[in-house]
Amino acid sequence: MKNTETKAKARPAGKSADEMGKQQREISVSEFFTKNRHLLGFDNPRKALLTAVKEAVDNALDASEEAGLLPDIVVKLEPAGVGDAPAPPASQATRFRVTVIDHGPGIVRDQIPRVFAKLLYGSKFHRLRMSRGQQGIGISAAGMYGQLTTGKPVKIISRTGEKQPAHYFEVQIDTKKNEPIILEKKQIEWERHRGTQVTIELEGKYQKGRASVDEYMELSAISNPHATFTYHAPDGEVKSYPRTIPVNPEPPKEIKPHPYGIELGMMLKMLQDTKSHWLSGFLSGDFSRVSTETAEDICKNAGLKAHMRPRDVTGQAAENLYKTIQATKLMAPPTNCLSPIGEKAILAGLFKQIKGEFYTAVTRPPAVYRGNPFVIEVGLAFGKTPEALAAAAAAAPKAPLAEGESRDDDGELARVIRFANRVPLVYQQSACATFKAVLDTTWKNYGVSQSRGAPPAGPMAVFVHMASVWVPFTSESKEAIADYDEIRKEITLALREAGRRLGVFIKRRERAHAENKRRNIFELYIEEVVGACKRLKGGKIAEAKLRAQLNDVAKKLTGGQKTDELVDKKAGPFGLPDSIIVTAEGVEGDAPAHVKEGK
Amino acid sequence: MKNTETKAKARPAGKSADEMGKQQREISVSEFFTKNRHLLGFDNPRKALLTAVKEAVDNALDASEEAGLLPDIVVKLEPAGVGDAPAPPASQATRFRVTVIDHGPGIVRDQIPRVFAKLLYGSKFHRLRMSRGQQGIGISAAGMYGQLTTGKPVKIISRTGEKQPAHYFEVQIDTKKNEPIILEKKQIEWERHRGTQVTIELEGKYQKGRASVDEYMELSAISNPHATFTYHAPDGEVKSYPRTIPVNPEPPKEIKPHPYGIELGMMLKMLQDTKSHWLSGFLSGDFSRVSTETAEDICKNAGLKAHMRPRDVTGQAAENLYKTIQATKLMAPPTNCLSPIGEKAILAGLFKQIKGEFYTAVTRPPAVYRGNPFVIEVGLAFGKTPEALAAAAAAAPKAPLAEGESRDDDGELARVIRFANRVPLVYQQSACATFKAVLDTTWKNYGVSQSRGAPPAGPMAVFVHMASVWVPFTSESKEAIADYDEIRKEITLALREAGRRLGVFIKRRERAHAENKRRNIFELYIEEVVGACKRLKGGKIAEAKLRAQLNDVAKKLTGGQKTDELVDKKAGPFGLPDSIIVTAEGVEGDAPAHVKEGK
Repeated sequence: MKNTETKAKARPAGKSADEMGKQQREISVSEFFTKNRHLLGFDNPRKALLTAVKEAVDNALDASEEAGLLPDIVVKLEPAGVGDAPAPPASQATRFRVTVIDHGPGIVRDQIPRVFAKLLYGSKFHRLRMSRGQQGIGISAAGMYGQLTTGKPVKIISRTGEKQPAHYFEVQIDTKKNEPIILEKKQIEWERHRGTQVTIELEGKYQKGRASVDEYMELSAISNPHATFTYHAPDGEVKSYPRTIPVNPEPPKEIKPHPYGIELGMMLKMLQDTKSHWLSGFLSGDFSRVSTETAEDICKNAGLKAHMRPRDVTGQAAENLYKTIQATKLMAPPTNCLSPIGEKAILAGLFKQIKGEFYTAVTRPPAVYRGNPFVIEVGLAFGKTPEALAAAAAAAPKAPLAEGESRDDDGELARVIRFANRVPLVYQQSACATFKAVLDTTWKNYGVSQSRGAPPAGPMAVFVHMASVWVPFTSESKEAIADYDEIRKEITLALREAGRRLGVFIKRRERAHAENKRRNIFELYIEEVVGACKRLKGGKIAEAKLRAQLNDVAKKLTGGQKTDELVDKKAGPFGLPDSIIVTAEGVEGDAPAHVKEGK
Repeated sequence: MKNTETKAKARPAGKSADEMGKQQREISVSEFFTKNRHLLGFDNPRKALLTAVKEAVDNALDASEEAGLLPDIVVKLEPAGVGDAPAPPASQATRFRVTVIDHGPGIVRDQIPRVFAKLLYGSKFHRLRMSRGQQGIGISAAGMYGQLTTGKPVKIISRTGEKQPAHYFEVQIDTKKNEPIILEKKQIEWERHRGTQVTIELEGKYQKGRASVDEYMELSAISNPHATFTYHAPDGEVKSYPRTIPVNPEPPKEIKPHPYGIELGMMLKMLQDTKSHWLSGFLSGDFSRVSTETAEDICKNAGLKAHMRPRDVTGQAAENLYKTIQATKLMAPPTNCLSPIGEKAILAGLFKQIKGEFYTAVTRPPAVYRGNPFVIEVGLAFGKTPEALAAAAAAAPKAPLAEGESRDDDGELARVIRFANRVPLVYQQSACATFKAVLDTTWKNYGVSQSRGAPPAGPMAVFVHMASVWVPFTSESKEAIADYDEIRKEITLALREAGRRLGVFIKRRERAHAENKRRNIFELYIEEVVGACKRLKGGKIAEAKLRAQLNDVAKKLTGGQKTDELVDKKAGPFGLPDSIIVTAEGVEGDAPAHVKEGK
């Protein structure tokens, strides 16, 4: 009796540990992501539409490439009515049917339900190889969002070959169990011989401009020049992006983890899980860039026997092994697991985005974070005088503003175009390591103005691509790259290199303008000098020769180049290895030859 | 034979659907988060140290409050040696032992392993009630990171009462299964009668300054004035933050979802899962703010029978029901599920952070996003002339810069102090809806300078708190609030209100300065006027009286107030409801009385 009272006193209106214990429950991963759908990119209807398209296109591209097929992808958005109501026009619709069709290898019948209606299920998570998908969440998440907002199932047709039947499925997720519910499955006639078609009905909003499906399709075509895209916009417009390169990029190879940057705990786990019987065999067999010789050296330096069983390496021995590995000089990881976009495609892409005066691209050597190899590619376009820009701006209607973007008439901020494993990133810019690196670069050093805490200002586009076997995104929606020190460093170095080249260009341009002005003044006087000489000599001089001589003097005194000669050259005129400067004049709608061909 | 050839030709070096199908696998949630540890806040050693502390403190505060106990929390950081090596000094250590002790209710024995070594397990996910933890990930994630980087298990002591034994556990996560592995369990003697102690050894880095554990402790004390914190920094320093309020905040109540903003799919699921037998009973019983009467009205307006079985409401009927609910006028959700910090604590907290001239706090009325009620609180401090600031800056050593921060001598950018459910958010500022709202507010309207794309510049601190039954974070690490339209709108409205008050203050201050200058000039002449009058009258005047009269005239002409009188008032002198203006002069180390007491 006394006890109970004490307890009640000590816990006014509070719960006991027992009561709290009874509330503890397991949370299914589907329940978790239903509540956190913004983590998957479904925080608002406009973004949801884009995310669904993106997830389906990622899968379509990955599957086609992995099967060695040239990607040929159709994306179709249709406004849908709510309930019995007829479909409203695209601009007013609140529901859409998203259909993505590939001509890829198809999916075997048994896998279809789980591929489309189970989170954390897939083939790409457990291997080290660059691909667009990596988590086994995306397409099922899109289906789950459709189910949540419209109650409609995901509809799939898939066929693995001409001799095979086409399978039709309707599936939903049982969110409490994170398992598929099959509502319908049958064999159907399908006009395609091979491929997969997925249809999701979802709450969405269609609006062109920045961060739209339209922009995403355009950027995807830039980063995937080997793929053909056909895009049916919800307003009925059809856009085609035929491939410009007739072969797939070299398929990236699957690799083993590189020992640099791998965590002690991960190594402990690998020591337990390995199939090798000897420690040295484990080191050379389960890691990349560790030869048999190096493996034996590591064992020796760590004071361990090369022939001991890996699972016996624990505690202090494991710590020593770990320290020794980190201190051993090893080759950089192989990069055949990566498939960069390439400077050529970057320059051509930038040229499509911004008609400028200066273009450059920088590819960093491969680096490693947490054992994962990655490559950073940066492109930079700087364009046009303010007057030319103003004229262009007056001619073109202004695009709607995207998230976080602002515009006023004081001057444009640089645009940052981001890609990860060839996938355009169009949301969450300010959370992205690429954008942070752009902010932190001191652009004033390169002649570009910049306010504190803001991106550089000016007619400028910055292109950044990270290619890696595992891109660390800041959320499951894969919109921004996480801020690992090693990654930020590589982006910063690439930006600085591009910035330096731009700085040289801007300085030269300024100097050329000044020299040009001086020469122009000089030239104004040439005729008068020639006339004066003629009068002095009584008309008896070689007029044309004198004029040419004076012109030569003028040129020599003022650097010998006209502004026009500064540009439109095949290679960078300043002796910079990869700098390319082009004029936009005279080129219609496409990059000039030297951009297309590379330097 | 021919078939095989065709197939081989069509798929050069590619995989077949069968081969790809065999690679499909389930991914455990622990494997997923091990690879994506940055999602949990463990991207770099400094941040990892903070995240581990934060997760443990969140749990300690939640548990104590839920049990009706006043939180009394000890946080202890100790440098740890690698392997046999002795522990290096704090500034050089790469490993730390993090220990957090509460005097809370303890955890029942059976639950300990899963609470600390299983992701997505907890008591807070499945209910609608404001708490710091909500996902069932945090503390297990910290343990998993410790395991990954040091190989060490998590050590727990817990005791649920004086008559109960204390249990000691050492646990790790089996990442393949996402289940705990118990390495050690026993009963031990423990000096405490009740509470939980958790120790995690992990790779970390200790550095003071912005985004440090030190700052986090300081901010936690501000947002939890009812809690006592004792912080043992790794360099041996001990800081105490005794509670300033002797009672816990009113415990938030668990509520049912509000029908506004709930998704159709969620309603469909609730219709299937409900225990109600009648549709009207379902509506009034499973949602908040739906009375029996309203429920019957909704049924009628949707053309449905109030007595039909909820699980029979599907398809078009469900769509009609959904539309009718969204069109029905309902009371705003109850707010007893929320526990805002309160204007008093906000003002006191701001005063600790910035010694300024102007302070204000705005609490928005509760709003709803996706059926979840939330409240936004904003505080704003504006301080000190540039000269005073410069003097202060010269006196105080500069703190190290945090992520994304920059500093130069052109002028300081405003500091944004963010909280969610009373937890300070110190990372990922630029990804946060609060920061985006600060960027998007046109501060120039309120007399504060601001560059494009940058936060406002000036001696200013902006405090934002979101209290909700479910805060939508941009990642599992809970560092930034996701950008839902409804949330952004509320933050923006609160910022504008605070901004307007600041604008009035800045204008008045400018006017007062101008008037003051005028009066000072006037006053310079008073003596001369008095002297002249004296000479005119042959010395026969009431000199003091004249001087006083002239002073009165001067005051009247120039607004009657000295600058000094503008400040140090008990209530806002401008008739603004919540505006408070204080001087820092004469107040030592603490807020002035009226800040402490509220207005």
